[in-house]
Amino acid sequence: MRFECMSLKFAFSKDLSEGELQILDQTQLPLHEKWIHIHGCEQMIEAIKSLRVRGAPLIGVSAALSLAGSAIRGTSRQRLEQEANALYEARPTAVNLMICVQRMKKALENFELRNFVETAVEIYQEDIQLCDRMAENGAALIEDGDQILTHCNTGGLATVGAGTALGVIRKAHQQGKKIHVYVDETRPLLQGARLTTWELKKLNIPMTLITDNMAAQLMSLGKITKAITGADRIATNGDFANKIGTYGVAVLCHYHKIPFFVAAPYTTVDPECSNGEGIPIEQRNANEVWGYRGSSGEIFWVPPQTPVYNPSFDVTPHGLVSAWILDKSVYKQADIAKGVLRK
Amino acid sequence: MRFECMSLKFAFSKDLSEGELQILDQTQLPLHEKWIHIHGCEQMIEAIKSLRVRGAPLIGVSAALSLAGSAIRGTSRQRLEQEANALYEARPTAVNLMICVQRMKKALENFELRNFVETAVEIYQEDIQLCDRMAENGAALIEDGDQILTHCNTGGLATVGAGTALGVIRKAHQQGKKIHVYVDETRPLLQGARLTTWELKKLNIPMTLITDNMAAQLMSLGKITKAITGADRIATNGDFANKIGTYGVAVLCHYHKIPFFVAAPYTTVDPECSNGEGIPIEQRNANEVWGYRGSSGEIFWVPPQTPVYNPSFDVTPHGLVSAWILDKSVYKQADIAKGVLRK
Repeated sequence: MRFECMSLKFAFSKDLSEGELQILDQTQLPLHEKWIHIHGCEQMIEAIKSLRVRGAPLIGVSAALSLAGSAIRGTSRQRLEQEANALYEARPTAVNLMICVQRMKKALENFELRNFVETAVEIYQEDIQLCDRMAENGAALIEDGDQILTHCNTGGLATVGAGTALGVIRKAHQQGKKIHVYVDETRPLLQGARLTTWELKKLNIPMTLITDNMAAQLMSLGKITKAITGADRIATNGDFANKIGTYGVAVLCHYHKIPFFVAAPYTTVDPECSNGEGIPIEQRNANEVWGYRGSSGEIFWVPPQTPVYNPSFDVTPHGLVSAWILDKSVYKQADIAKGVLRK
Repeated sequence: MRFECMSLKFAFSKDLSEGELQILDQTQLPLHEKWIHIHGCEQMIEAIKSLRVRGAPLIGVSAALSLAGSAIRGTSRQRLEQEANALYEARPTAVNLMICVQRMKKALENFELRNFVETAVEIYQEDIQLCDRMAENGAALIEDGDQILTHCNTGGLATVGAGTALGVIRKAHQQGKKIHVYVDETRPLLQGARLTTWELKKLNIPMTLITDNMAAQLMSLGKITKAITGADRIATNGDFANKIGTYGVAVLCHYHKIPFFVAAPYTTVDPECSNGEGIPIEQRNANEVWGYRGSSGEIFWVPPQTPVYNPSFDVTPHGLVSAWILDKSVYKQADIAKGVLRK
């Protein structure tokens, strides 16, 4: 059996005697398309922490597949449990990881190899379907002529399907709507500049790259008609965490009366989290802000030891969101207030 | 006679038979402090266009000094006029350049070498005084415990004095007020990350560097109590152009009810410009957004030929400004409405 998408490859023999998981090293994009064989969960944790694998849905699927890979290699049930616990904590903000790992842990309870591997495959296949449904739901909100601002990367590199926010954009383009995408470069790790541009180019969708601080001016000039981002965790009151900078985009949209949408699968909703204050925000290393490290090399442009603040995410309160595009449906403020995310 | 500041050195013999102008190449900061001898106005124009010399007030003073240097080297009156005209157009947004060049052109009318050189020296000395007055006026607005966001670079590298916005911050620090500065890195050219950090370090003022898209989150957490920026041109209705990203900061301050100040000398006010729509916005090369080029090397991190939008400045409407800190006084909305900038 082979499962392959833009961001990973998973294969195993019918008798489950052999298996293989490869991930595309996203830190090397867009210059190099370098694939890495994942030989164990420790390596997957490193890949998650160093953002070789990134995007809340993709992290969850990758973690599940790496546990399946471990199981195929004959790892004991007890050891699989330890690996699952370690994976669970690899990134604190994205909840999809936790939800997917929980599901794999449940499959460990009455452990049976085939069932365990199939659970991971189910998670993989479900993610594709969730993307398709989000895309379908969200594309209905996009109009011919829209100029859409997006932040970070939310496409085939952030999921195993068409993506969340970028999946919506892609679908609208496929439907023949004439759209233009403005891509926030998304400092410090430049997921917009490196990854979203790379995907949009492959998809032949018209785009313009900007630095994050240019979005406000474009809005004031009437050049942005909608904004759409993904999410790393959505609280049941509609608040959500996403890549640092998302909150600023939402405030700017509010000020300029531009609709602001968030697109995410149900696996991003944390039923345990009643509002944004409960979402832990990962702080990352100062050297990410000091410069750039990636496929083109490494460079620091600040005076040595410059003090830095580097939160990976911020929280956007529900009041700034025009609509939540989920796989089930598109929700408005009134739906969220009624508690649809609590179910 | 010798005149020396953080950003340039100007010297000439008493008999005006010899003269020398050197500028600090700001594209090489913070790693290298490289001084460049300016041998003619063409070289100064290149230095302005490539941002070796930058900051609206400093550009104006540098242009005046380079004309004085040309005159000392025996350049004809007619040729000086041509050089002045070429300098006038080196950067379209900053009005200080135009005002300083106009003043030198006036001194060309009844050309006398000593008077011409002294006009440039006057412009130099006046800039220092203007900075001192702005600093004094603005520091009165800063309170003990303030956490101040600033954007781009507005200190001794943007003027020949203490600076505009950074001069205010420096003065408040000298007055013993406990302040902390949050520095926007200011993509694409990173004047905050490279230059403001370098200056604040020299001045021993506590600071934290952030990427531009982190300011909103800090505001929502109550970590920013004031914001202050410089300006490249102020219209008589109070609208002003400044480094791209300034407008976004102003909108975010407005939303979070944080006072937003602009500091600039009267040479930044354009009496011919009645509102922000009249300010031309310079568009710069795509390669600035494609990556980084500076003292640490050159690197591109985007897919080849990625389409880019790269305005150097944006316009902040007067309604978002809490106070205009000028050398003469601090003006509030009511003062501006009364037309103080039209005089």
